[in-house]
Amino acid sequence: MLEKYGHGGDLLTAAELFGVKEGEGAFIDFSANINPLGPPPGVLEVLRQHGLAAVTAYPDPGHRRFKQLLAEQLDVDSSQITVANGAAESMALLLLALAPQKVGIVEPCFSEYRQLAEQFGAEVLSVHGTAEQSFRAEAGAICGLLEQVDLLFLGQPNNPNGVQYSLAELRLLAQHAEACGTCLAVDEAFIDFIEEEQRQSLLPELTRYPQVVLVRSMTKFYAIPGLRLGFTLARPELAAAMTGKQVTWSVNGLALLAGEACLRSGPEYERATREGIAAARALLRQGLLALGCDVPPGEANFLLCGLPAPWGAAQMQEALGRTGLLVRSCAMYPGLGPGHIRVAVKGRADNALLLLRMEELMRAGPSRKGRARCGGLREK
Amino acid sequence: MLEKYGHGGDLLTAAELFGVKEGEGAFIDFSANINPLGPPPGVLEVLRQHGLAAVTAYPDPGHRRFKQLLAEQLDVDSSQITVANGAAESMALLLLALAPQKVGIVEPCFSEYRQLAEQFGAEVLSVHGTAEQSFRAEAGAICGLLEQVDLLFLGQPNNPNGVQYSLAELRLLAQHAEACGTCLAVDEAFIDFIEEEQRQSLLPELTRYPQVVLVRSMTKFYAIPGLRLGFTLARPELAAAMTGKQVTWSVNGLALLAGEACLRSGPEYERATREGIAAARALLRQGLLALGCDVPPGEANFLLCGLPAPWGAAQMQEALGRTGLLVRSCAMYPGLGPGHIRVAVKGRADNALLLLRMEELMRAGPSRKGRARCGGLREK
Repeated sequence: MLEKYGHGGDLLTAAELFGVKEGEGAFIDFSANINPLGPPPGVLEVLRQHGLAAVTAYPDPGHRRFKQLLAEQLDVDSSQITVANGAAESMALLLLALAPQKVGIVEPCFSEYRQLAEQFGAEVLSVHGTAEQSFRAEAGAICGLLEQVDLLFLGQPNNPNGVQYSLAELRLLAQHAEACGTCLAVDEAFIDFIEEEQRQSLLPELTRYPQVVLVRSMTKFYAIPGLRLGFTLARPELAAAMTGKQVTWSVNGLALLAGEACLRSGPEYERATREGIAAARALLRQGLLALGCDVPPGEANFLLCGLPAPWGAAQMQEALGRTGLLVRSCAMYPGLGPGHIRVAVKGRADNALLLLRMEELMRAGPSRKGRARCGGLREK
Repeated sequence: MLEKYGHGGDLLTAAELFGVKEGEGAFIDFSANINPLGPPPGVLEVLRQHGLAAVTAYPDPGHRRFKQLLAEQLDVDSSQITVANGAAESMALLLLALAPQKVGIVEPCFSEYRQLAEQFGAEVLSVHGTAEQSFRAEAGAICGLLEQVDLLFLGQPNNPNGVQYSLAELRLLAQHAEACGTCLAVDEAFIDFIEEEQRQSLLPELTRYPQVVLVRSMTKFYAIPGLRLGFTLARPELAAAMTGKQVTWSVNGLALLAGEACLRSGPEYERATREGIAAARALLRQGLLALGCDVPPGEANFLLCGLPAPWGAAQMQEALGRTGLLVRSCAMYPGLGPGHIRVAVKGRADNALLLLRMEELMRAGPSRKGRARCGGLREK
């Protein structure tokens, strides 16, 4: 299984699985949702010029310059910001700071919500979205869950289906979270990919909701997942409590250096990314629908894709992997069936190649071996 | 105060304090204990050649290649290894895995032992070394502490005094730890700087002591503190429990890439480092003693230095800082007085410059302003 560690983007496992020498260009990776433009050009230049100094000195334990830039660009107070070693550490710090007994999640969702909550000793309660609603749950069901838990994680847009809750729904949830005294952590790791006029975020009104925490990632949009950089926006006391649980120098020097350069990279790269992704996503979705897949109208840089019978996710993943294309199997997401994969929206040529390979495979049908290995879905 | 975040190596605070524009070459930094040779040349080459790929892809969440290389070089089983985001994260993972109620420390020592223990809710008990014994505590006193706590951190060589416990003492402590059921975490972050024939480590007999954990750092010896990379060696069940508390992708891709290159860099760099440090340290200690300082016979790449009256640590730090030299004030180390600084052993020219500046300052005497700011030590 490609998701040996529970996630996409694992090129080493892919190389082992598909008998390929690991290295640059060995795969086209649709299993991790990274900006296909790569990092902003200015970022690579900064890393080339100042990288050595950032490698050989300790990182700033206060993340001061990056935090200051973030505060200016997001129009928040720097006391609201906790900079972290990736969005995953942000979530861990929130769990450590709040020590919740019960954590709520809305499935299907990013697997780390459950994993981290259990890792730090919480009981996990969940509600589920339905296929009819693009795997989005009703706001009423989430409100019910808010009443039962101490902390609730909500993806906005949600991974793996890529859909957003509306601002009206978010406000309802935030008000309910305030009333219940439950922390509502809205994971906006992929929100930068959504055009501003479509984006639904509580950021501009965050100070009205002391129980709301926004989790952001720098690594997907700016294509620096290897460096690890994320942050949260929260009320200052909670931000301080999270920082109080963080290990000194948890955020490395190159991540801070690159993060500052990303924030300084200007609007052109951001605009090009959003427009490029939106256009490429529309074409990719059209192509997948034409292949008979069931594809919710995701708004981020990935699409959830229900495969037509008799294909299972593992079969398609393996068949595509043998042609050098990696996709994410969603078979392990509670709330999804065994026939869902998730594909990143990449450049148009890559997306076209994915569609072509899928079409070829579907025309030939799943191999007996593949079907047997995947439990012989619908074979009998 | 330079140690705003509790540690040396904070160049941004130094730039603010001393009114200098931050940047490469602004200071000669004796406040952080980093190999003055810089990273092995092959490491920089690997970062230049493969850095971009490591930035734009997710890190291997299993740290497989680095772990495998470590296992081969240290002759341990890879199931004993937990790779971490710096030695500080190693300690945090140990605390999270064991959830000790009481943690023992031997002061003066690395401030993170206490800080992390308190951060994760443990009560801290301590014993103290004495000036007569180079601030090393008696093995008997440490045994007494082992009986009272669930986990004990011991520096080997210890920071800030740089001295080692003998192998006989370590064995006694390890046996006592086994008898008490107390975890003994031996922090070997600086042990690579000690020549092999002088090095006192339980590594070759680690499997005899299931309660012993060795904490190692890659960042000091290989001069990559900005990247963050450390690891522990422990019994496999404890190693697995520590990994179970780790956030996915906690170790970034460049750290893993550089770490592999460090382990492959060959014995020449290691030999040159150890010989260079040993020779430079002897000269530096001689020079400090000649200035009237009290300097324990440290064996690592730093020296603890008790300043002669009327100098306080803060005064000397400030006076040297204004000449572009950063040293670590040890005034906040429990167990040390207000007149101790710690200086890294750097290249001979840098060390000579430090001695020259200290001599000039001592000849002129501490400034009134400096003395007043430092509480007017011996001024009345």
